[in-house]
Amino acid sequence: MPAQIITPVILSGGSGTRLWPVSRSEHPKQFIALTAPETMFELTLGRVAGLEGGATPLVVANAAHAEIIRKQAGPELTLILEPSARNTAPAIALAALALEESDSALLVMPSDHVIADVPAFHAAIERARPLVADGWLVTFGIEPTAPETGFGYIALGNELAAGVNTVSRFVEKPDATRAAQMLAQSGHVWNAGIFLFGARDFLAALATHQPAMLAAARAAMAAATRQGAAILPDAVAFAQCPSDSIDYAVMERADKVACVPVSMGWSDVGSWDALYDLADKDEADNALQGAAYAIDANGCLIRSDGPAVTVVGAEDLIVIASGDEIVILPRGRSQDVRKAVAALSERPGHS
Amino acid sequence: MPAQIITPVILSGGSGTRLWPVSRSEHPKQFIALTAPETMFELTLGRVAGLEGGATPLVVANAAHAEIIRKQAGPELTLILEPSARNTAPAIALAALALEESDSALLVMPSDHVIADVPAFHAAIERARPLVADGWLVTFGIEPTAPETGFGYIALGNELAAGVNTVSRFVEKPDATRAAQMLAQSGHVWNAGIFLFGARDFLAALATHQPAMLAAARAAMAAATRQGAAILPDAVAFAQCPSDSIDYAVMERADKVACVPVSMGWSDVGSWDALYDLADKDEADNALQGAAYAIDANGCLIRSDGPAVTVVGAEDLIVIASGDEIVILPRGRSQDVRKAVAALSERPGHS
Repeated sequence: MPAQIITPVILSGGSGTRLWPVSRSEHPKQFIALTAPETMFELTLGRVAGLEGGATPLVVANAAHAEIIRKQAGPELTLILEPSARNTAPAIALAALALEESDSALLVMPSDHVIADVPAFHAAIERARPLVADGWLVTFGIEPTAPETGFGYIALGNELAAGVNTVSRFVEKPDATRAAQMLAQSGHVWNAGIFLFGARDFLAALATHQPAMLAAARAAMAAATRQGAAILPDAVAFAQCPSDSIDYAVMERADKVACVPVSMGWSDVGSWDALYDLADKDEADNALQGAAYAIDANGCLIRSDGPAVTVVGAEDLIVIASGDEIVILPRGRSQDVRKAVAALSERPGHS
Repeated sequence: MPAQIITPVILSGGSGTRLWPVSRSEHPKQFIALTAPETMFELTLGRVAGLEGGATPLVVANAAHAEIIRKQAGPELTLILEPSARNTAPAIALAALALEESDSALLVMPSDHVIADVPAFHAAIERARPLVADGWLVTFGIEPTAPETGFGYIALGNELAAGVNTVSRFVEKPDATRAAQMLAQSGHVWNAGIFLFGARDFLAALATHQPAMLAAARAAMAAATRQGAAILPDAVAFAQCPSDSIDYAVMERADKVACVPVSMGWSDVGSWDALYDLADKDEADNALQGAAYAIDANGCLIRSDGPAVTVVGAEDLIVIASGDEIVILPRGRSQDVRKAVAALSERPGHS
């Protein structure tokens, strides 16, 4: 039996404000080169290029980003342009409906993560494949390396096959104490939002657990229009779709849910601190990107896409200059960039 | 006897790199609004506007700055444009020669200092006036308020008249220990580079102690050309002039040197730290100038003439954005801005 066709389904719905001011809603994180000369989106496409049995990728994206996706990906992909943002479950429903006839498997991936060890990722997919053929909804869980409080966790159950477990339960983003406990115990992995399942199996789970969502997505695809190679689901029909994440809407409710634990150099690059951790550094532990200069400084992330930024005599700072915005924060506080974004509307002259 | 005519002689030779990147050689500190809506040069002109017996000010400046001086000062001044920079003694020699015939007194002042208490300054000038009439070269010494190591000091001698002392000696910029000692002892004042003396008395002192300097300056003025209201000393003649400060060349050598100690809210605004000290601050001790925003930050000086700068969660930082340059340093280390300036030439693409 030939390997089942796997269609990479790349979700590009995020607006990435945690990496403001580089990432902005009109040009979010996934379309920016943060960790390599390639953008996060290009890296995502690249890591499925050599996939055994891999079909042309399908991208589900904000209609506002159609142009930049074509520019970065070329014409060789299927593009579903969401008329409105409804979180991940409806986005994946649209993709599953587009692939229903072929009954391809969907390899669902965010468009803005780093996976340093692509062979490990591909090996994890191979471990998942027999389960998917047997109707399981598979999630990939990242072996934790730190007591992260910014991710959901998955408590693993019994081993179903070599390197594949049942899911005991999904754990909400924990506090620091709980995160440390889960790191100390084995059997807990990070929920990275990467999934593999058959199109019809996912749609069947939706029919059981989210019938209204499925009905709205199906109506939107039935009335979809085309714009070149892009599919535009009907806006009125899709507006009826409930908004929910795949975790809440499906994975926590469905019966045959498995998890493949994997170590693959994964990062969601979810903050400037995370980018600092990933970045190449000089002998003083400074990560310098663009017109960035450090003098008697150490442990700094300095990034500029425009003006020259010079840090003198400071430690452990994050300095990001992009366009007409500059933000400066201590390392370890990069989640506070949201406070800077929130304050934008209070500026004098803001309309 | 009417009060002697006093001609304010404003020295505008500095390039002000300690306030880089706002202050640059083509547009140095004295022509920038740092502490008030007016530029330092405008403030300097303003504080002699109401001076008893004050004549039209005379400005000695770099020829490259003629245009900006006319713009900021208007036509109501005498302008000597130096063909080359020769430090303060030759610059003052040019002014004294221009005023030799009238035998005005010269009130020599840098163009880039702050004096908050102008009445105290004018009162100090009044104390000096009888000594000047008697042929003394008078310097104004600032009562120290901190153990500053960035200034020269003057050790006061006997009282010559109420509020006027002889000079015991000039003290080079001290180390921290010596500065603390001088602050603890009374009788030491900061040398602020502000002087009052008769034109002919200064020229006589030059003739005694710096005959080559006087000869070169006199030759340069004898062969000067005019450009509108500006006097252009002859470049070839002035190039022969030794370069030296008025302190070294004259004040430390001449016989009749007096000092008027004064407290007048003086600052040389010689660093970003000094500007922070002078600036208005918000309730979190942040000094915000231009498009500058502080969130959960305190004790920061943030100044921008262009991009929006937001500091989140940091303490005691100096952040200066000007043109295409941004510099960031901890407060207390602003003298290190010179390291950033020195590193400019090492940047990639620098020719």
